[in-house]
Amino acid sequence: MFESAELHHEISKETYEAEVPKLREALLDAQYDLKAAKDFPVLVVIGGIETAGKSETVQTLNEWMDPRFIHTHGFLLPTGEEAERPPMYRFWRALPPKGDIGIFFGSWYSLPMLTRIVGQTDDDALRESIAEIRHLERMLHNEGVLVLKFWLHVTKREQNKRLHRLEKDPDTRWRVTKGHKMLAERYDEAVAIAETMIRETSTAEAPWIVVDGFDHRYRTLTVGKVLLEAMRRRLDSAATAELVTAPPTVSQVDNVKLVRDLDLSQQLAKDDYRKQLEKHQQRFGRAVRSKRFRKRSLILAFEGSDAAGKGGAIRRVTGALDARLYQVVPIAAPTEEERAQPYLWRFWRHIPGHRGIVIFDRTWYGRVLVERVEGFCDEPDWLRAYDEINEFEEQLAENGAVICKFWLQISKDEQLRRFQEREQTGFKRFKITPEDWRNRDKWEAYEQAVADMVDRTSTEFAPWTLVEANDKYFARVKVLRTITRALDDAL
Amino acid sequence: MFESAELHHEISKETYEAEVPKLREALLDAQYDLKAAKDFPVLVVIGGIETAGKSETVQTLNEWMDPRFIHTHGFLLPTGEEAERPPMYRFWRALPPKGDIGIFFGSWYSLPMLTRIVGQTDDDALRESIAEIRHLERMLHNEGVLVLKFWLHVTKREQNKRLHRLEKDPDTRWRVTKGHKMLAERYDEAVAIAETMIRETSTAEAPWIVVDGFDHRYRTLTVGKVLLEAMRRRLDSAATAELVTAPPTVSQVDNVKLVRDLDLSQQLAKDDYRKQLEKHQQRFGRAVRSKRFRKRSLILAFEGSDAAGKGGAIRRVTGALDARLYQVVPIAAPTEEERAQPYLWRFWRHIPGHRGIVIFDRTWYGRVLVERVEGFCDEPDWLRAYDEINEFEEQLAENGAVICKFWLQISKDEQLRRFQEREQTGFKRFKITPEDWRNRDKWEAYEQAVADMVDRTSTEFAPWTLVEANDKYFARVKVLRTITRALDDAL
Repeated sequence: MFESAELHHEISKETYEAEVPKLREALLDAQYDLKAAKDFPVLVVIGGIETAGKSETVQTLNEWMDPRFIHTHGFLLPTGEEAERPPMYRFWRALPPKGDIGIFFGSWYSLPMLTRIVGQTDDDALRESIAEIRHLERMLHNEGVLVLKFWLHVTKREQNKRLHRLEKDPDTRWRVTKGHKMLAERYDEAVAIAETMIRETSTAEAPWIVVDGFDHRYRTLTVGKVLLEAMRRRLDSAATAELVTAPPTVSQVDNVKLVRDLDLSQQLAKDDYRKQLEKHQQRFGRAVRSKRFRKRSLILAFEGSDAAGKGGAIRRVTGALDARLYQVVPIAAPTEEERAQPYLWRFWRHIPGHRGIVIFDRTWYGRVLVERVEGFCDEPDWLRAYDEINEFEEQLAENGAVICKFWLQISKDEQLRRFQEREQTGFKRFKITPEDWRNRDKWEAYEQAVADMVDRTSTEFAPWTLVEANDKYFARVKVLRTITRALDDAL
Repeated sequence: MFESAELHHEISKETYEAEVPKLREALLDAQYDLKAAKDFPVLVVIGGIETAGKSETVQTLNEWMDPRFIHTHGFLLPTGEEAERPPMYRFWRALPPKGDIGIFFGSWYSLPMLTRIVGQTDDDALRESIAEIRHLERMLHNEGVLVLKFWLHVTKREQNKRLHRLEKDPDTRWRVTKGHKMLAERYDEAVAIAETMIRETSTAEAPWIVVDGFDHRYRTLTVGKVLLEAMRRRLDSAATAELVTAPPTVSQVDNVKLVRDLDLSQQLAKDDYRKQLEKHQQRFGRAVRSKRFRKRSLILAFEGSDAAGKGGAIRRVTGALDARLYQVVPIAAPTEEERAQPYLWRFWRHIPGHRGIVIFDRTWYGRVLVERVEGFCDEPDWLRAYDEINEFEEQLAENGAVICKFWLQISKDEQLRRFQEREQTGFKRFKITPEDWRNRDKWEAYEQAVADMVDRTSTEFAPWTLVEANDKYFARVKVLRTITRALDDAL
């Protein structure tokens, strides 16, 4: 794979100086077209062998284009807050918004490769990382991100020569760290592992471009030209990114029974409610104060029919906690910054660290509920979301999060009763809008969407709990009981 | 001060239940008017004696109003990333956007009080904190934030009773931490210190409202009514917040000489440039890699005439560094989220932690340069900005940041030459816009703005360096030399 990158491609100074001004101009044009269209972002990942010129390439790109619309992020080891969250967290936070260019110097490839090279992880772990990366990159592509990955290569001999040269000079010696030396000693393993990763993650939607780093002129010119061509092609094609994966079809089984067969007549007397609520709140409080929760976190996701009582249930959950220990995140319309990002971005920014508790009042499932039913996103987009969401939640769970997801279901009659009550009670009137009435007309479509959602995203690590919510007491206790049981199981 | 709050105000259940629905309805109306106007945010600070009902009050406010537009933040000790930054950082990050309500449970008052009560800090430190807080709150007020601070009070006897009751029950015992007991033992000191803080920070622009916490009905009703009244008054008054402080007048001295008398003929030969650049880049690199930089950070602020060479100078600075260790923040038009916040908010979000290096390409000085000259903000607003900026930078400096601010100045003729060159060179054309030509017509107004800025914001902890930039070599070396000297002095 690296054969061609070991041919010592060279470009003369004359050719270089003749080509660069044209290339810069064309890159700038493309950059301004990108900014004007605000239709997609560009993500440039720079990886490669040490001394192959990664840092210089990053600098040159910043020099050639308008740096105001380039977001360059260098990634070393994760910092405190990052280390407490799933590995992908810091990359999500750094994604460029639509219209801009992001340059990742170091990326989601760095740590999996490094830990494999030094033998801290095995091939299985590497394979898992690769699967996760493929998944992420496919999702970014489907969300419209133009992903380009450059791998800069030099031969073992050339690397040694460069390290030697750097070390001889007292003023560049610092650039040669112990890490560099260690990696240089393991050049052959490093290249073998890189080859595997590159082969397995070079996809149509996020290709690797291997570049010979021997000659700096050849290297920068190649990176610049490839970037330009990719941007130009995408900008000039009328269509947005094509989906590369066939979306799964919706299951044909009558899964809607799942929702319809709920026994909504279940209820709890007030006395029982009080006793049980108190009991579970106490257990809950104890669990999250326990030492075993120290490196864990809790993520609660609330969805439900309109007027099903999400708010009331959430308040009974938070009632058990010190108000400084949790965060309730109400999901309303996305902000401008959020709209310029893949749809999961706005949820990633709220993911808790150790001991964190985050309660989402409506969630990422909006994608397969309201967006599906109302046609706010295309069918292929919500169809792929099931899989993307499972992957997202798996990352959270692997990171130690306990995840409980609640769907609160009421009957159509009960909803009508509550809507009418809300309209008659002054301080409840804000809870009822014309939209609620419109949603009610789509009751069956929502039922189907809920059934599909529960079908496809109820996983071992993040199960759905359907809550019969005609009786508020019953619903609240069921929610709290589910949480305490999940915590008991996990801790 | 607390006398009235010790009278054990009580409200009967009947009165309470009659009043609450009306109050809730009115609060919701006010909340929706606030949201619709999107003209200012509301910040509710909840403080008080332990067991006086702070947590319950926070819960009730969330229950009474539409929680989708309330941002509740509880503040305990600062976390890792927060602890590396100035104390106000985490509060800035949590400010509510225009149209929304923020509730701070714990606030900038908590730590200064606590550390004073336990004797970790002295009266001088408390006085300093008070001054800083007054400054912040005045600034928030002037930026349009409606700030309300509630102090919930109970008597010593009542507190002991409540703690005792909580401790007796095995299921509420956890609520009584060592911290609570310690504070309860120092009730008298705590109240004395609270009294000082409250007295000194109860201002027209951010008043304290002391509330008797004896009876929960009285307490919540009082908080709700005061909040309602304050929101209503502000919403119904045509004017926005009035400035409470007379702005400083612009100095009459002919300080513009400062800029005009710069010797722009200074230059550096190419050979000298190369040698000196290399020398300073090396010194710079060594300084930020040294152990003494471990708990420090570096903030570089670049401003200058159009075409003065900011970008080129910045690249010579970053050329000395590993691309993973610094962040260049180009300041373009603010995003929607940024526009909904006080103007310093967008800079606070980029403040570095330990060992961090952040380079601002244009800065918070836009307020007193382009915004002043173009009339984008009112005179009182940019006049107060000098002081606000000094305070901001002082906080950074006290936190260990080394701050260098550069104004790059070229002559009017040199600017014309560069503009023309830019128009003739394809890949430089992006750097020149009709706006640049328009700015040129306001050359004198900018000169005055620069002179006033340097006059008023060149402080010991964050000095301005005026850079004669007709010769790029001279300018770049001066920038790097200034940085290395500042680091040498600081470390």
